[in-house]
Amino acid sequence: MPYQHRSMDGSPLGLPPGKVVCIGRNYLEHIRELGNAVPETPILFIKPATSLVQLADPIQLPTGRGSCHHEVELAVLVGRKLQNVDASTARQAVSGYGIALDLTLRDLQNELKKKGHPWELAKAFDGSCPLSPFLSPTGLPDPQAINLTLYINGELRQEGNTGQMMLGIFDLMAHISNHFTLLPGDVVLTGTPAGVGPLQSGDQLILGLAEHHFTAQVA
Amino acid sequence: MPYQHRSMDGSPLGLPPGKVVCIGRNYLEHIRELGNAVPETPILFIKPATSLVQLADPIQLPTGRGSCHHEVELAVLVGRKLQNVDASTARQAVSGYGIALDLTLRDLQNELKKKGHPWELAKAFDGSCPLSPFLSPTGLPDPQAINLTLYINGELRQEGNTGQMMLGIFDLMAHISNHFTLLPGDVVLTGTPAGVGPLQSGDQLILGLAEHHFTAQVA
Repeated sequence: MPYQHRSMDGSPLGLPPGKVVCIGRNYLEHIRELGNAVPETPILFIKPATSLVQLADPIQLPTGRGSCHHEVELAVLVGRKLQNVDASTARQAVSGYGIALDLTLRDLQNELKKKGHPWELAKAFDGSCPLSPFLSPTGLPDPQAINLTLYINGELRQEGNTGQMMLGIFDLMAHISNHFTLLPGDVVLTGTPAGVGPLQSGDQLILGLAEHHFTAQVA
Repeated sequence: MPYQHRSMDGSPLGLPPGKVVCIGRNYLEHIRELGNAVPETPILFIKPATSLVQLADPIQLPTGRGSCHHEVELAVLVGRKLQNVDASTARQAVSGYGIALDLTLRDLQNELKKKGHPWELAKAFDGSCPLSPFLSPTGLPDPQAINLTLYINGELRQEGNTGQMMLGIFDLMAHISNHFTLLPGDVVLTGTPAGVGPLQSGDQLILGLAEHHFTAQVA
């Protein structure tokens, strides 16, 4: 079934699936684990709407393209057009909060980085953004102070608190809006905490967003 | 006015503006002029729908972000969903041919390449893809053997023939469809011939696609 943005009760939210604008290296511990430098300016990249799949559907890993890493992230659903806005305007435009996997073909990404090539082949492939239903903003009164967790086969693999972000959610949205206009139905991914690693066929995932939990499975 | 895909007579084509999938380094002479290596596999990147503007509208260059280069390209409008298809299927899905500028913040792109960062800030910004109306496929019976030209202020700056592409139009579309599903309204940019360079405020452009000419102006 084609992907639709949904609320927690499963009903469609009526916003068209749009682009997904992502930030790289927004949690210090994750920067350290990959041996990267702390960026002077935010590293932004985009996944197209064709990357979106429901988190509850079996996750299809690309075959023959090397390791595919999980990166669990807080996802923000945009409800209004945002162009050159400030953080406060961005906050008012949030339609919901969810949790996403920014799936990354890590071996390929490392090759692309070495060559100075664009990242899309490693980051923007079909199905590269499994995405949960969205909590309404009132259901997450302080989104900048919540825990994100990812368990795989019962083991805690990723853990962070959105309070550890270097660039906060609404400052990030405002910054993005200076480069890429955000439209209703677009999604912003806010970066991944430490603990990324490869997914394997059959892996059972539990993603935690504050007190909410979502299950997923790798096909 | 929001961008819409249009036919040569100006009427809307009824296909939603989608993502723009682009190939880097598809003409040998352009690879040489930038001192790049011939890629072993196609370099793909994506501009979101928010990059699309009508070619006839004044071109807005980003300010304070360094030089903005013109890259004139044959644009292909996708009319049907394409996923893991062959070149012949891709050809049948073409809804039209146009001419586009893949605007590129070259100084920024060079910095991003050096750091191994993604290209979106340099390639996917708002308005980075001015796009002409589309000729119907029957109006361009042999799209792999047509001249592309770009005149700026009366001077020929870019010139090429689509027969010089390293990866042909339909093979490129088929290749893309293995990574990023193409949807009706998506656009494929097929690479730029030699002669790229910076645009300046007030520049008058004439873009040539076979015997058709389109004018544009930098604001």
